[in-house]
Amino acid sequence: MTQKPASPRTRKSPEQVRAAVHQAIIDLLCDPEGEDLNIPAIAQRAGVNHTSVYRRWGSLDALLADMVTTRLERDSPLNDTGTLRGDLLAWAEASVANIRTREGRALVRAVVLSMPHSAQAQAGRAQQFQRRMRSIEQIRERATARGENPPPLEQILDQLVAPFYIRAIFGIDPPADGYPELLVDRLLGSGGEGGTG
Amino acid sequence: MTQKPASPRTRKSPEQVRAAVHQAIIDLLCDPEGEDLNIPAIAQRAGVNHTSVYRRWGSLDALLADMVTTRLERDSPLNDTGTLRGDLLAWAEASVANIRTREGRALVRAVVLSMPHSAQAQAGRAQQFQRRMRSIEQIRERATARGENPPPLEQILDQLVAPFYIRAIFGIDPPADGYPELLVDRLLGSGGEGGTG
Repeated sequence: MTQKPASPRTRKSPEQVRAAVHQAIIDLLCDPEGEDLNIPAIAQRAGVNHTSVYRRWGSLDALLADMVTTRLERDSPLNDTGTLRGDLLAWAEASVANIRTREGRALVRAVVLSMPHSAQAQAGRAQQFQRRMRSIEQIRERATARGENPPPLEQILDQLVAPFYIRAIFGIDPPADGYPELLVDRLLGSGGEGGTG
Repeated sequence: MTQKPASPRTRKSPEQVRAAVHQAIIDLLCDPEGEDLNIPAIAQRAGVNHTSVYRRWGSLDALLADMVTTRLERDSPLNDTGTLRGDLLAWAEASVANIRTREGRALVRAVVLSMPHSAQAQAGRAQQFQRRMRSIEQIRERATARGENPPPLEQILDQLVAPFYIRAIFGIDPPADGYPELLVDRLLGSGGEGGTG
């Protein structure tokens, strides 16, 4: 009981540090106080030394990218529903459910914040884009293997992915009912709504 | 020549400070070095004292919001083309031209970065959304006054506005030709493309 511990602090394993740092980012993005997101604030919230955060991740961009990649891969199992429409609908339903939660919206905003912002960082942004679109590419590949004719990736980006990002960014709730179906119908060409021009 | 100036520095007027600070943000967002965007870095680049930046704008969010509002209002004169389709096309053409420039992409990323990120800041995000969508609302109002039936605001958000944001965020160039027409056709219901489901 009175035995002196080897270290004055409880040591965290590297994986515990990583999990604590990732969670601290989400917590800060959800915090009512709206503190600026930076490495010292994240390290303090996670209860770790900020120098070890700098040593491990190097920059806030890299840390955010690691966090969103880890979370999005954990959160998006890709079931094969048997049809292109079913797979797209499942993707859209998961995305609607995601942006209805505080943590889900924070995660989308973190994706945006993690974009390397300098002009020369285009290669980094393109790589992030490839990662973010991997699940959509898998849906397209399965459709092609089935003999279906999926829309081009950029069309899916514009019509299915973009609406979720802009709603998370501006905090605009998706319609209460039928939103996944609406977006998929528009994308696959069976949507007939629209005003007169 | 040897006369002592009233002040050791050349004094900038408040409007000159504002213009210099706004330009410094754009320059930093375009900088190949990719320096973190924060008030001390912005003030240094603008050649002004960072305490006066804090005093005037209070926070980075507020400063970014002021900059994007000023730039977007300067950059988007709204011509009445006489039809809903014409007005939407003009809006889309201006947006395509905008995100083809380095400064234009930086400005869209600044809009995203300026979003208040805390969970309780929803009111701030909604206000930013209203500002960003004002030109779209004007297009809708003119259409209604002409007896046209414009699509709901949220549909224009999803189908016309969202694609520009996501492309600026991820650095995905719009198609070389016909992109404004493509988006407007999809929105107004005359687009027939799309894969088979």
